[in-house]
Amino acid sequence: MSDIYKGDAALDRLLERANSSWNAAALTDLVRGVLAAPKPIGPEVWTGLLDVSIGPDLESQLRAFHHEITKRSQTNDAGVPCGPARLLALRAQLKERGSNGFIVPRGDEYQGEYVPKRAERLAWLTGFTGSAGLAVVLENKAAVFVDGRYILQAQEEVDGKHFDRFLMAEHPASGWIAANLSKGGRLGYDPWLLTPNQVERYEAACAKAGGVLVATRDNPLDAVWKDQPPPPLAPVTAHDLAFAGEASVDKRRRLARTLSEDGIDAVVLSAPDSVAWLLNVRGGDVPYAPLPHVFAVFNSDGTVDLFVDPRKVFPGLGDHLTEDVRLSGPDSFGPFLDRLGTGRKKVCLDRDEAPAWILDRLEKAGARLVKGTDPCTLAKAAKNPVELDGMRAAHRRDGAALVRFLSWLDRRLKASPLTESEAADRLEAFRSENDHFRGLSFSTISAAGPNGAIVHYRVSPRTDRRIEPGSLYLLDSGAQYLDGTTDVTRTIAIGRPTDETRQRFTLVLKGHIAVASVLFPKGTTGSQLDPLARKALWEHGLDYEHGTGHGVGSYLSVHEGPQRISKKPSTVALEPGMIISNEPGYYKSGAYGIRIENLVAVFAVPPPEGAEKEMLGFETLTLAPIDRAMINLSLLNNRERAWMDAYHARVREVLHPLLDRDTALWLKAATRPLA
Amino acid sequence: MSDIYKGDAALDRLLERANSSWNAAALTDLVRGVLAAPKPIGPEVWTGLLDVSIGPDLESQLRAFHHEITKRSQTNDAGVPCGPARLLALRAQLKERGSNGFIVPRGDEYQGEYVPKRAERLAWLTGFTGSAGLAVVLENKAAVFVDGRYILQAQEEVDGKHFDRFLMAEHPASGWIAANLSKGGRLGYDPWLLTPNQVERYEAACAKAGGVLVATRDNPLDAVWKDQPPPPLAPVTAHDLAFAGEASVDKRRRLARTLSEDGIDAVVLSAPDSVAWLLNVRGGDVPYAPLPHVFAVFNSDGTVDLFVDPRKVFPGLGDHLTEDVRLSGPDSFGPFLDRLGTGRKKVCLDRDEAPAWILDRLEKAGARLVKGTDPCTLAKAAKNPVELDGMRAAHRRDGAALVRFLSWLDRRLKASPLTESEAADRLEAFRSENDHFRGLSFSTISAAGPNGAIVHYRVSPRTDRRIEPGSLYLLDSGAQYLDGTTDVTRTIAIGRPTDETRQRFTLVLKGHIAVASVLFPKGTTGSQLDPLARKALWEHGLDYEHGTGHGVGSYLSVHEGPQRISKKPSTVALEPGMIISNEPGYYKSGAYGIRIENLVAVFAVPPPEGAEKEMLGFETLTLAPIDRAMINLSLLNNRERAWMDAYHARVREVLHPLLDRDTALWLKAATRPLA
Repeated sequence: MSDIYKGDAALDRLLERANSSWNAAALTDLVRGVLAAPKPIGPEVWTGLLDVSIGPDLESQLRAFHHEITKRSQTNDAGVPCGPARLLALRAQLKERGSNGFIVPRGDEYQGEYVPKRAERLAWLTGFTGSAGLAVVLENKAAVFVDGRYILQAQEEVDGKHFDRFLMAEHPASGWIAANLSKGGRLGYDPWLLTPNQVERYEAACAKAGGVLVATRDNPLDAVWKDQPPPPLAPVTAHDLAFAGEASVDKRRRLARTLSEDGIDAVVLSAPDSVAWLLNVRGGDVPYAPLPHVFAVFNSDGTVDLFVDPRKVFPGLGDHLTEDVRLSGPDSFGPFLDRLGTGRKKVCLDRDEAPAWILDRLEKAGARLVKGTDPCTLAKAAKNPVELDGMRAAHRRDGAALVRFLSWLDRRLKASPLTESEAADRLEAFRSENDHFRGLSFSTISAAGPNGAIVHYRVSPRTDRRIEPGSLYLLDSGAQYLDGTTDVTRTIAIGRPTDETRQRFTLVLKGHIAVASVLFPKGTTGSQLDPLARKALWEHGLDYEHGTGHGVGSYLSVHEGPQRISKKPSTVALEPGMIISNEPGYYKSGAYGIRIENLVAVFAVPPPEGAEKEMLGFETLTLAPIDRAMINLSLLNNRERAWMDAYHARVREVLHPLLDRDTALWLKAATRPLA
Repeated sequence: MSDIYKGDAALDRLLERANSSWNAAALTDLVRGVLAAPKPIGPEVWTGLLDVSIGPDLESQLRAFHHEITKRSQTNDAGVPCGPARLLALRAQLKERGSNGFIVPRGDEYQGEYVPKRAERLAWLTGFTGSAGLAVVLENKAAVFVDGRYILQAQEEVDGKHFDRFLMAEHPASGWIAANLSKGGRLGYDPWLLTPNQVERYEAACAKAGGVLVATRDNPLDAVWKDQPPPPLAPVTAHDLAFAGEASVDKRRRLARTLSEDGIDAVVLSAPDSVAWLLNVRGGDVPYAPLPHVFAVFNSDGTVDLFVDPRKVFPGLGDHLTEDVRLSGPDSFGPFLDRLGTGRKKVCLDRDEAPAWILDRLEKAGARLVKGTDPCTLAKAAKNPVELDGMRAAHRRDGAALVRFLSWLDRRLKASPLTESEAADRLEAFRSENDHFRGLSFSTISAAGPNGAIVHYRVSPRTDRRIEPGSLYLLDSGAQYLDGTTDVTRTIAIGRPTDETRQRFTLVLKGHIAVASVLFPKGTTGSQLDPLARKALWEHGLDYEHGTGHGVGSYLSVHEGPQRISKKPSTVALEPGMIISNEPGYYKSGAYGIRIENLVAVFAVPPPEGAEKEMLGFETLTLAPIDRAMINLSLLNNRERAWMDAYHARVREVLHPLLDRDTALWLKAATRPLA
């Protein structure tokens, strides 16, 4: 049933009658901000932000109003059309400003993996939609730099007539700038979008060219992007102690002690997941992770100054935060930093994470700056018992949904063809029926046959393949639940697998088991464990070109640091409570991809007899069968077989009560012993 | 037959008659320098340095003269006696200079592991004779800082009444300085003995205390160490192309190209092994490694400026070096650096390796300084085919000597008791009979029973133990040969080993085999392989607290970088030709120690069928039996047994022709198949 919008005056009257200070004009901005955020999943709909009791008439008109603004923003045609016109418009803008070029990163003020629509500047300018990259625009030349995952995509999406396209590792932007910026040239950058360490790198590049890197006062691209969405306005809500497991005041007290010991007065927190963790709040400003786009300053007395658009503050949040957390609008952030400077405060800032703007402002104001890392990063990595229990519960529900999907897939493929996107949608539907479901934790990788060899594949109408018999189907997916975050990959034989794919799968499985079952002494880093995942592949001259594991948040980002299992050296020791993925793989370009991924939690292992060290191990959290048809039994030793059987038995026992009869029967067969 | 010294006048006459410009006064300094170097092993005796044809009379008088100077230097009693008097003398000297303290590192201008007698300042002042440590002397306090290997030794050797003794890892010197230097205090350091990175650290520590770190013009400790030996004067000689495998001019051309590409004009080489490798020369200024104490500047045109005491230059060396290598005395080094500065040259300096003095001089002179690493370090790490063949040959001879010793030990222990030092001497005697033998590559670790648990044990009269039945004997030893450097550890059961020691030994062996037999893709670092050596121990809650492998030079230092196998993260990929040790261990304090060490060379493995990556592996160079009596067969899998049998078969076949009949029979039994 649709409501008809009766106009602003009528809405204003209804609002006044409800004793609300809102009016249609202010609401227009609010709804545009709400529309600039991802679609909300939870109960905190935007009207909740109005903090007013809403009768049926007002409710109907608000719904109609929202529809009206949505329509308007969709038909907005004030913008520069796609294509080279945008590059020309930016160049004209730069010329007007007396600038010789501009750096356009794919990233926002918060340096996260996902960005709101407003921050998709690189895509707007160049057409490149990957999750990492950078463009540099000069007067007569422009180039896009991407990493190995995205070079093919960049070549397809970016117009080669107007942009050179480079693989960063071979042709870094800094080298290109050094070679192409004119002597005396001024290359601009938006100091909100680059970190101090990035700025340092590009400054050196400009200096090599005899030019100079210049921070712009505002973003020249934003000036020409007429229909750029506003900053997102998703509600910031309390994250219940029943899920968070530790009160914010306790977290702050604990970390403040370390700050005081180090003689630090304040830490600037620019990472939304750090703020979310520290204050036990969640937001929704980007897709796939419940992150609030806010800045905060954490003081050594345990208090926090939080800078947040007041329109995002969900009613009641203030009570949740207590008076130790002072709320101000984003405009107060700069003056607050100035006061830290005037007070000669010792301020810690993560130079790989914070916007350069913050560093510049603090420096100018006279703050004593301390290089360091965001103290929340390590603290939130080690989950507390309540978070771990939540993760376990979330994994039970998530596993049940995945098993329902796998059993459905098995039957469905026997009946009629199915495409990658149809499969992904079906899996999402199963998951969305789960309690506490809040959305996917990343865009599902539903990859049939050769698409499985594209490590970061994301199905699109153009690439959507049928899942065909005689191929492999790689499915990497996960969800956000109030009590935890999941991420699981299974590779499924469709029809009869070949000897080669079974051999490769089994080598990957050997690596997976080696990591899952290793014991290691306290102090060991994930990098030290990485070769265990690869050794079996190495013996056959094979390898995979990605890390073995990434940290995972607790109803936060599905990718979080600082721990990882990777070839890249790491100095971060694994600690009890840390959650990390275990996902070795193998990829044959143009043919198939294999990956087996479970999440695991680090725990203190009861010492074996005669043990002299404190030993840690992994508890596997993910519960889903590993395709028996893909296993070449002759390649597994007895210990590996025993691991497989024990894992499958656990999957079966834990998930059985959550499944309908048919699915339970399917699971029983899928998890029967190997021998 | 002894010669009687007839006095300086008579010697001068003989020298004049031989048309030599030398006289007794100059010869006194020369011989004092020669005596300050380790005892030479090779044919290049000191009289060779005179470059004069020596008749029988002169020869006799020179021998007598050398004896006379040796006697004089031994009976020299002008020095401050051992004990607190030295600390008092240093403090008086500091006071005279208006200084509030002084840093005394155990290290010299070349930052090597071994130092000449002149540089044993830490031992002279504090009594501590370990190979790493640091003292800081203030007006009323003094402290010695050592690492975990040496804390017990420091407590025994250093007088606790006058020096506090700290474990660096827990109480770093910088923290102690920050806490104890008085406000406004001036802490001195000898800029020849600290690197720029060390200076930076101590500067920050002094600043914390409100004091200042000050470079001294000369070393105040040297001023009070009256009988301090002069700098060593060991001959610098050519290293034959038949051993070096690549002409110096080719090495220089190759590296100069990289310098030019990077826009660098010159690199200062302060590491003696870098200079020795680049110029194909060897010296003898420190024990255990044929290193020349010289400085060099390597220019981007491929030429070298070498700063060396002319008295060390062995006749003919100039021809070997060619005119591309310009020789000057040490006094010319400073003015040369000044000219680099005046010329605004871009100069690269390794801030972890070079003396701060060089950086300061270059900075003052106006050179454009580039942070970087010594380019010879990585280049010399990958041995060329001639060096690899030399290493193999050296290991055959070395293996034969070790087998002779092991077979002798077996018989000898049945006959009568034997001590650690007697065993070490016997082993050295066997080795010294080998062709191309040039000395030990480090002080033999001959450790019986509980002494084996001391990782860097060195036998002394006080600790010398009998090698008793029912114990383990750990023997870590190696030698320098003209064609290669060896380093091998064996752990031998004396009598019947216990179940526990056999289990631990077998776990260590499993780690050793895992490393020895691993295949890994190009680009892999040693750190990535480290956990393979530990996994079997980890499964039982055990580990060892040292690295698994260090690089080894080719007739150079037995410990060299940049590659290593270690828990410490490394970014240096293993490359074909690199030599590295494979030495996992296990230590039970107060009871026994186990270590199994072979040297291995990285090589490009023929790709296995279906391989997609360029794979590397290890060739084991060391040839010596691993004690079968220590192996618990039930803990080895089939692949491990096969590796053991294949290794033992190779040891037997290769060494058999080099052994006498009895030893060959002993070896045959020692290397018979396990089954």
